[in-house]
Amino acid sequence: MEINLISDTITKPSVEMLQYMFNAQVGDDVYKQDPTVIALEARLASMFGMEAGLFFPSGTMANQTAIKLHTQPGEQLIADKYAHVYHYEGGGVSFNSGVSCCLLDGVRGMITAEQVAGAINDPEFYHSPLTSLVCVENTTNKGGGACYDLNELKKIKAVCVANNLKFHLDGARIWNAVVAKKQHPREFGALFDTISVCLSKGLGAPIGSVLLGDKATIHRALRIRKILGGGMRQVGYLAAAGNFAIDNNIAKLVDDHRRAREIAEVLLRLPWIGKVEPVETNILIFSVREGLSEKLLIEKLKEKNILISSLGHGKLRIVTHLDYKEVMHTYVLETLQKIVL
Amino acid sequence: MEINLISDTITKPSVEMLQYMFNAQVGDDVYKQDPTVIALEARLASMFGMEAGLFFPSGTMANQTAIKLHTQPGEQLIADKYAHVYHYEGGGVSFNSGVSCCLLDGVRGMITAEQVAGAINDPEFYHSPLTSLVCVENTTNKGGGACYDLNELKKIKAVCVANNLKFHLDGARIWNAVVAKKQHPREFGALFDTISVCLSKGLGAPIGSVLLGDKATIHRALRIRKILGGGMRQVGYLAAAGNFAIDNNIAKLVDDHRRAREIAEVLLRLPWIGKVEPVETNILIFSVREGLSEKLLIEKLKEKNILISSLGHGKLRIVTHLDYKEVMHTYVLETLQKIVL
Amino acid sequence: MEINLISDTITKPSVEMLQYMFNAQVGDDVYKQDPTVIALEARLASMFGMEAGLFFPSGTMANQTAIKLHTQPGEQLIADKYAHVYHYEGGGVSFNSGVSCCLLDGVRGMITAEQVAGAINDPEFYHSPLTSLVCVENTTNKGGGACYDLNELKKIKAVCVANNLKFHLDGARIWNAVVAKKQHPREFGALFDTISVCLSKGLGAPIGSVLLGDKATIHRALRIRKILGGGMRQVGYLAAAGNFAIDNNIAKLVDDHRRAREIAEVLLRLPWIGKVEPVETNILIFSVREGLSEKLLIEKLKEKNILISSLGHGKLRIVTHLDYKEVMHTYVLETLQKIVL
Amino acid sequence: MEINLISDTITKPSVEMLQYMFNAQVGDDVYKQDPTVIALEARLASMFGMEAGLFFPSGTMANQTAIKLHTQPGEQLIADKYAHVYHYEGGGVSFNSGVSCCLLDGVRGMITAEQVAGAINDPEFYHSPLTSLVCVENTTNKGGGACYDLNELKKIKAVCVANNLKFHLDGARIWNAVVAKKQHPREFGALFDTISVCLSKGLGAPIGSVLLGDKATIHRALRIRKILGGGMRQVGYLAAAGNFAIDNNIAKLVDDHRRAREIAEVLLRLPWIGKVEPVETNILIFSVREGLSEKLLIEKLKEKNILISSLGHGKLRIVTHLDYKEVMHTYVLETLQKIVL
Repeated sequence: MEINLISDTITKPSVEMLQYMFNAQVGDDVYKQDPTVIALEARLASMFGMEAGLFFPSGTMANQTAIKLHTQPGEQLIADKYAHVYHYEGGGVSFNSGVSCCLLDGVRGMITAEQVAGAINDPEFYHSPLTSLVCVENTTNKGGGACYDLNELKKIKAVCVANNLKFHLDGARIWNAVVAKKQHPREFGALFDTISVCLSKGLGAPIGSVLLGDKATIHRALRIRKILGGGMRQVGYLAAAGNFAIDNNIAKLVDDHRRAREIAEVLLRLPWIGKVEPVETNILIFSVREGLSEKLLIEKLKEKNILISSLGHGKLRIVTHLDYKEVMHTYVLETLQKIVL
Repeated sequence: MEINLISDTITKPSVEMLQYMFNAQVGDDVYKQDPTVIALEARLASMFGMEAGLFFPSGTMANQTAIKLHTQPGEQLIADKYAHVYHYEGGGVSFNSGVSCCLLDGVRGMITAEQVAGAINDPEFYHSPLTSLVCVENTTNKGGGACYDLNELKKIKAVCVANNLKFHLDGARIWNAVVAKKQHPREFGALFDTISVCLSKGLGAPIGSVLLGDKATIHRALRIRKILGGGMRQVGYLAAAGNFAIDNNIAKLVDDHRRAREIAEVLLRLPWIGKVEPVETNILIFSVREGLSEKLLIEKLKEKNILISSLGHGKLRIVTHLDYKEVMHTYVLETLQKIVL
Repeated sequence: MEINLISDTITKPSVEMLQYMFNAQVGDDVYKQDPTVIALEARLASMFGMEAGLFFPSGTMANQTAIKLHTQPGEQLIADKYAHVYHYEGGGVSFNSGVSCCLLDGVRGMITAEQVAGAINDPEFYHSPLTSLVCVENTTNKGGGACYDLNELKKIKAVCVANNLKFHLDGARIWNAVVAKKQHPREFGALFDTISVCLSKGLGAPIGSVLLGDKATIHRALRIRKILGGGMRQVGYLAAAGNFAIDNNIAKLVDDHRRAREIAEVLLRLPWIGKVEPVETNILIFSVREGLSEKLLIEKLKEKNILISSLGHGKLRIVTHLDYKEVMHTYVLETLQKIVL
Repeated sequence: MEINLISDTITKPSVEMLQYMFNAQVGDDVYKQDPTVIALEARLASMFGMEAGLFFPSGTMANQTAIKLHTQPGEQLIADKYAHVYHYEGGGVSFNSGVSCCLLDGVRGMITAEQVAGAINDPEFYHSPLTSLVCVENTTNKGGGACYDLNELKKIKAVCVANNLKFHLDGARIWNAVVAKKQHPREFGALFDTISVCLSKGLGAPIGSVLLGDKATIHRALRIRKILGGGMRQVGYLAAAGNFAIDNNIAKLVDDHRRAREIAEVLLRLPWIGKVEPVETNILIFSVREGLSEKLLIEKLKEKNILISSLGHGKLRIVTHLDYKEVMHTYVLETLQKIVL
């Protein structure tokens, strides 16, 4: 059997989750008549201390909708140079919103308030795009699962307020941050204009993200979701999976984090390892020693039925998740120590 | 219990469909690793004699993606004045594709080859948008479930070929047409560059449409789906519902059509009826006599737990579907005859 | 020598206008340092009783900018079925603004308040585009130079105010309306959110339109003009032509109108004429008798060095202008009477 | 009298240029009937060894049109981090084309073939935008008037060909490069798919850029120009200025370059100077010694009627041009040496 450490998106629902899903009450969500969806949206809004929520078929659509809600064509958003919205949403920022990205050279995918302040275009200088939005990821994806310091986020918020910018959180892995840093979701709800919260990835639901914001914004989001084609019919089955995941799987994230840390500890002792980046959550980025080939490592692990992915230039990524169980973990730790590069 | 004749989108999966969904094999469809989705896409492509298919979370997204694939910003598509893509997809034609609509005055939502030929802008006259696409619906939605004559579609195809236009079929209710006219899906596959096929509505699956086309086009569609946020993870549960629906529910559409016809026959004998449009499939459009209020009729039926919808200006719409069973039908026919307006 | 009655856009500056142009004081208008441009913008704003103006290289760009200022992508504007912004601006409404057009069946290019009121989409019905703008032309181009009744415009304005719609005037030939109906430009300034005023066409300047509006709107227009590439450098030469045209050529429009009327009177007496539409300004639309060929008429007139254009389907258009002098007019009237079709 | 060294865009036509403009033959360029425009377009195409040209009201519109011609929404272009198309065209890349920018860390605004090769997204990885265009500036604006090595451009071209990318040259100051490096315009024509050539700036015409390319591309450009609102009427006056500038002002650029160099030589000897960047053409970027204020220098020079501009962070920019005459130059050199910071 394969052990897939390529991404936490590959988890499959457990039998319990499936039973819960298929007992869901459903309705036509295009008419907002699906009680399970409505309940999930309200539940997440309440958890984050925000007014309203809206279910989306993907995190990409939730993020893209937020960007559209906060900007006008020709404007610019500020994000880290590794931002998912810039790199991995198909160019949607420009396609869907006509907006450009000002990318900052952050640390592990995280930018500072000072950097943001320095990147805002003078609103009176009409030759340059009007800056209107700041997007951050927490945890960072390409930044290696790093968690923002809440104080830095508060400082960025202050810069946003002072400069009339909106502030969006790409919460693809917000649960990992909440668990790792022992924060309350409400601490994020208090800072952001919108938050996309993923129910897949670490939480293990098959499909779905929820966008949170104030009532007026989420009301407008309904139109954008319709335009992008995200209005679905009997969505309650998917929403039920989200509910089950919130009830049962948040608590399990500590195991994912521990396992990622334990892999890091093993790696640090291996002769062929270059650098191992700090592990804060379930993502682990490391490199092989200069001169060695990361592709060879990937192949050797694949022969042992362990799948991991390359970030290029000698770098690799491991992601732990709900379907990566303790028995697999023991095997991975043992196997890594036997690899000779 | 309510009898909802507002739309065929409100059907809920049967226990059998749910069990089938529950047992689906799934994978991460963003990486195209969900076997059930892949099989459904291939199955529908094969049914329509087309090369490839791609699953979408909604018919709107399937249509919008097709329009984007066939056009460039600034260009124009031709459609009937009632077209769903113009009226009920949130203005997506302009938002997603930067394209304008040239709306023709068709009959019951259906346009002719002659009308199309007359509406094509001279490609050398650069002041006017370049015409690049024709979209038709079959059956027509706002046109009352009317079915295109296949010969007329062939003529439109010839106009498209002669003028370098693409040809897209919004197949939100293509199954109704296929069943009503005893056609083979391949007859449509032979004519169109792309077809969106809905698994919800008449077929009763909870979520999903599949876009069909040639391999190169569907390959490009994957990018557009990603950009719009339609890339989902473990989609196999939804695809399984589609498979179940194809196996079990196409054959049941004849009942929907018969019931719609029987309602029409009853209506025609009622004193307060103005006009009853021809019933070809599961949609029935009719009007009350001039001077009478369609809103009053809606209210009186609602008191009897029967929900139907207004099209304004005295017109009303009834849509039959999988969850509208014979016992309800008997009740509806009886109730209609007792109504006094 | 050719007598060109195809359009009033073909006029060339007189020697006096040229002298005035090349004595203009200029500066770099991108930095808003061109005194002649600034003066012209202020002058036109004052004439129309509006706060501010901005010079554009074309009427198309002035209209497109206005539409962008008043709408968001996905929204809808309402216009007559003959509207220049829909037909002859290259599909720019969708390309530049992502907006769709709801086209009304007006009379001679003019729509009514009642029609507008009936075409506004319910803002809560999020499946359909949000209606946000009404555009009218005065005089109408394809409508044959017809002039709106000011009271109807006031009624449309009331509908706009009641429904939170913006109201834009495409004033490509507003001077013809003002002169023909003996109106004051301020009567229009009081009604519209923005007005594009053309300096070419009837007025005879070589290049330029000015968009008028309130200060905040025109301030935002500067950004849109920059994005579209309409920011030019030493524009004072063109603005000077506009100033000269306002001083000298408005008064001459009565001659254009009289000549168009006189041609109509001659046409009405000719045996091969089908219909002559009412002539209110400098545009004259007429048709040849059924069975006769309008192309033949165009050819026969061309042999006599008179150029006019076809609107298709037996219809033709004649446009009088500043470079169409009395001696030419006499010749045209005589020649028309000699034509045998 | 002020000596303006802020930009070469502020030049005003000489009396001779004005007389030449004044005598131009003109026509309606929207119908492509202006002989002077047609001749200028053909002349420039011939100079650069390209098939066709199209006149634009601004360099911004010429660049934006080229970008639109070479890309589809959602795609990505590669440029230097200082690129004018990204920073100073109002966000038009995203607004007009829905395209994002991948910005490279070049030297003095110039990127290398190796950098380009490393920045191309894998076309099969559909999560990231498809790379489809490389844009370079020559000379670089914010890069200090630096000139590309022709061999490097050839290497970039090879990367473009190998990867199916288009290659556009923003030639806002291409004449400066041609003169400084003693190149022939045809050497650039052979490399690029499109080139925007500015007639203002160094050449001293009041308005206008011409986009060059092959016939099919320029034919398509006409549509885009129309949509953006760049179709103007009697444009021959502006084109005549361009013709005059080509005849008379290219040869004068050597003086601009010499004067910029001479200012640099003086600056290098001054005690308050930090760094003076190499001067290749008419742009000179320098900084004051750390701790000193560039704003104070700007003020002190302004008192002496010399205007220069800040680039922030202690950096300043001087641009020489046609209206900066020898007598002014002598005064500037003397004045600089007297300044005490």
